[in-house]
Amino acid sequence: MNILQSPREIQQTADALRREGKRIGLVPTMGYLHEGHASLIRIARAKSDIVITTIFVNPMQFAPGEDFSRYPRDLERDKKIAKSAGTDILFTPTSDDIYPRDFNSQVYVDNLSTLLEGKFRPMHFRGVTTIVAKLFHLTKPSLAVFGQKDIQQAVIIRKMVKDLDFGIEIIIGPTVREPDGLAMSSRNVYLTESERKQSTVLHRSLRQAETDIHAGERNAGTITGKMIEMISAQPSARIDYVSVSDPVNLQDVATLRSSSEVIVSLAVRFGSTRLIDNIIVPVP
Amino acid sequence: MNILQSPREIQQTADALRREGKRIGLVPTMGYLHEGHASLIRIARAKSDIVITTIFVNPMQFAPGEDFSRYPRDLERDKKIAKSAGTDILFTPTSDDIYPRDFNSQVYVDNLSTLLEGKFRPMHFRGVTTIVAKLFHLTKPSLAVFGQKDIQQAVIIRKMVKDLDFGIEIIIGPTVREPDGLAMSSRNVYLTESERKQSTVLHRSLRQAETDIHAGERNAGTITGKMIEMISAQPSARIDYVSVSDPVNLQDVATLRSSSEVIVSLAVRFGSTRLIDNIIVPVP
Repeated sequence: MNILQSPREIQQTADALRREGKRIGLVPTMGYLHEGHASLIRIARAKSDIVITTIFVNPMQFAPGEDFSRYPRDLERDKKIAKSAGTDILFTPTSDDIYPRDFNSQVYVDNLSTLLEGKFRPMHFRGVTTIVAKLFHLTKPSLAVFGQKDIQQAVIIRKMVKDLDFGIEIIIGPTVREPDGLAMSSRNVYLTESERKQSTVLHRSLRQAETDIHAGERNAGTITGKMIEMISAQPSARIDYVSVSDPVNLQDVATLRSSSEVIVSLAVRFGSTRLIDNIIVPVP
Repeated sequence: MNILQSPREIQQTADALRREGKRIGLVPTMGYLHEGHASLIRIARAKSDIVITTIFVNPMQFAPGEDFSRYPRDLERDKKIAKSAGTDILFTPTSDDIYPRDFNSQVYVDNLSTLLEGKFRPMHFRGVTTIVAKLFHLTKPSLAVFGQKDIQQAVIIRKMVKDLDFGIEIIIGPTVREPDGLAMSSRNVYLTESERKQSTVLHRSLRQAETDIHAGERNAGTITGKMIEMISAQPSARIDYVSVSDPVNLQDVATLRSSSEVIVSLAVRFGSTRLIDNIIVPVP
């Protein structure tokens, strides 16, 4: 595995690989890799000639007061995980490499960026789409893999790619979970022992929603109401939102239509840790 | 010369050319081509294996009330000029090709887009950077050529390319002028005979500024004051701005520094026609 830090160097490398007809698969991450990331790298591995994994904790997608400075980092362990999952090139730029002092541009997807997570993190997706556009330009991929855990991010990036004609296939890899159902996340290390135990309610509430939908429930309010009741029973849980939404336009769905699909998603804080999770459910 | 209208088709063509190792030169235009455009195409011709010229009157860069609907169009003549200047592929998409109904993304360069022209056309450069980003993604150029007449556009695109790592060389081609000095522009056809005569003052005033700077004048207010006096002597002229600014950050310069360069630029309305022009002057 080759490790590059300079944007110019990765761009030249990617250009040369494209000229050789190589199909590049990109997996952008913020590092502190876990089995969820490894599964995305393996998807890229299976579909590409060259896999580029990037590790960059992107300051532009954190608001003041969010967890940018304490976001967990462990580059040595990341190198091992990235390599064993099948990465050919690991790109680990510094913040100064990516955002020179006079940096002043942005890529923005309207509407989608203001819903769900966007209500609680208003500038977040502007930071995400800008860094992903930069990484796309630097690494020239044919395909890029994003995790379903950050479903809104994946939907927005897919829209950006379509609107701005990037010509890159966006693949959404399934969420990988701990044995007790908690979605893997670099942020799980923030949880105290008690919060960690309580956090399993998130997946249980999503499974409950799935069961209810399969049983014929069509009223989103009834579905989310039951989830909110379950989650609120945990003493440390503070709900930001629980939502049933359309998988393309992310608008709230009030009444579920047969033969459609919905995203059931949530964001819940346990102490100072904010967790998100979701499932995509076919409506029978 | 090959003429393509479909975004998917030009993207596949450009991808294939890149894989063959071809160096693509792009010349984005709004059509109604004149010798100014032809000179940009010839620059691309000299520096590329394949020249792609695009013709698209971009609705996103016109405000309501501006001249989008009456902007002059003559595709048959454009084809001849594009071909004879050396275009290999002419890309002529429709508005529906470029902006599907749910289009909702944008590329924006902050600060630079709010100065000079941006004060009078607040959403203009957002439309320019978004369409140019799309054209870059569709045509995969190694270089792109823009005219100096739209100097702020060229400076902003250069900044976008740097900030977002497009990896494309931006070349600024010199302004081509009529024998009496008026900068060639598709909009010149709007001018009445009387306005056309008066419009020569624009270039005369820029030449005056150049003469004054060469003679040692360092006070921008003195330089623009004389220009404003010259232009205002024309009965139909209404000045939007006359400016001396920095060629990189476009900020107003109050006192010219030796061994620097400045842009002297202006926007003046004659009746319903708004003209812009500029010169780049080395300060001795």
